[in-house]
Amino acid sequence: MSRWKPDARRRLQEAALELYAEQGFAETSVASVAARAGLTERTFFRYFADKREVLFGNESELQDLLVTTVAEAPEDATPWEAVSRGLAAVATHLQPRREAALTRARIIAAHPELRERELSKVSAWSGALEVVLAERGVRSPAVVAEVAVAVFRTAFQRWVSGEEDLPALVREALDDLADVVTGSTSRPHEPGRRSHHR
Amino acid sequence: MSRWKPDARRRLQEAALELYAEQGFAETSVASVAARAGLTERTFFRYFADKREVLFGNESELQDLLVTTVAEAPEDATPWEAVSRGLAAVATHLQPRREAALTRARIIAAHPELRERELSKVSAWSGALEVVLAERGVRSPAVVAEVAVAVFRTAFQRWVSGEEDLPALVREALDDLADVVTGSTSRPHEPGRRSHHR
Repeated sequence: MSRWKPDARRRLQEAALELYAEQGFAETSVASVAARAGLTERTFFRYFADKREVLFGNESELQDLLVTTVAEAPEDATPWEAVSRGLAAVATHLQPRREAALTRARIIAAHPELRERELSKVSAWSGALEVVLAERGVRSPAVVAEVAVAVFRTAFQRWVSGEEDLPALVREALDDLADVVTGSTSRPHEPGRRSHHR
Repeated sequence: MSRWKPDARRRLQEAALELYAEQGFAETSVASVAARAGLTERTFFRYFADKREVLFGNESELQDLLVTTVAEAPEDATPWEAVSRGLAAVATHLQPRREAALTRARIIAAHPELRERELSKVSAWSGALEVVLAERGVRSPAVVAEVAVAVFRTAFQRWVSGEEDLPALVREALDDLADVVTGSTSRPHEPGRRSHHR
């Protein structure tokens, strides 16, 4: 039998999420994650540097999706349209994975060192996004990239706090930001628009 | 002689910054920071939990300034104007402290665990800002707060990377964001506006 396990990475991620949720992050060893996945510790360390990293294994995949979508937006799209397409693509990709995302979010929220790692991973997105926005000729790529990530993070936070539809939350956050920046929300407490917000 | 040192906190911060810059963050002990400040280790721990925290001692002061300025903006100011005033106040406060900020930024940039702590501290600003924006009746306080912090972080990064004028950098970042969001930068590489950017 071949020792090559094509789905080792995914199996390790699923096993880690299960065990962290069942018995706690601090109480779970790399050895037990590997055992649950039917793999060796050595295999674990071929994929992940430590038991924190196994929670962040999909960040670079999401980053690629974001960056590629922005890069491939039509030439006549404005920078904001390109960014909106990129965030929408990530949201649409995540939506069917909501259950795992909720479990993961609960584990991360309970551990300050995981929250710090999460912030650091997400802030890496903005570096990658800045590069592709600069290639599109955006004037302040760093500002737009940081803001795009901030918008996404807010929508994501609402999603893992109980709201259902991540793509809709992202669209709403983008629209609300546009309204605030253009000053069209100068009348506070406008009743018709607040109903769908927390 | 009284054992009460009114400026102990500031002296510890200055001593830490000097020693971290001179001999390295990892190589400096709490004992040597206290000694340089002419204080005891016990006094150090009355002000700071560890040798990382001494670098982040002013975050809450800046957060207060931001939040108070936003809260006290004129009633007829739009949310975006209120946020702009808050960020301007923080930038104006920091500008005369540029040399210490540069030293501090170099130390933090060299240590991933300090960078993670920095991200985590700055993200706390957005929580506080969200509360005060909600009080002003802003529709999506979380989005606006996260975005405001993202804008500030970008300007701050340019400032500690060599640009001179933080208040101007903040104004520019706010203006550029408004342009992008309103779609007025759909023509890439507009020559007259790029000259002052990196």
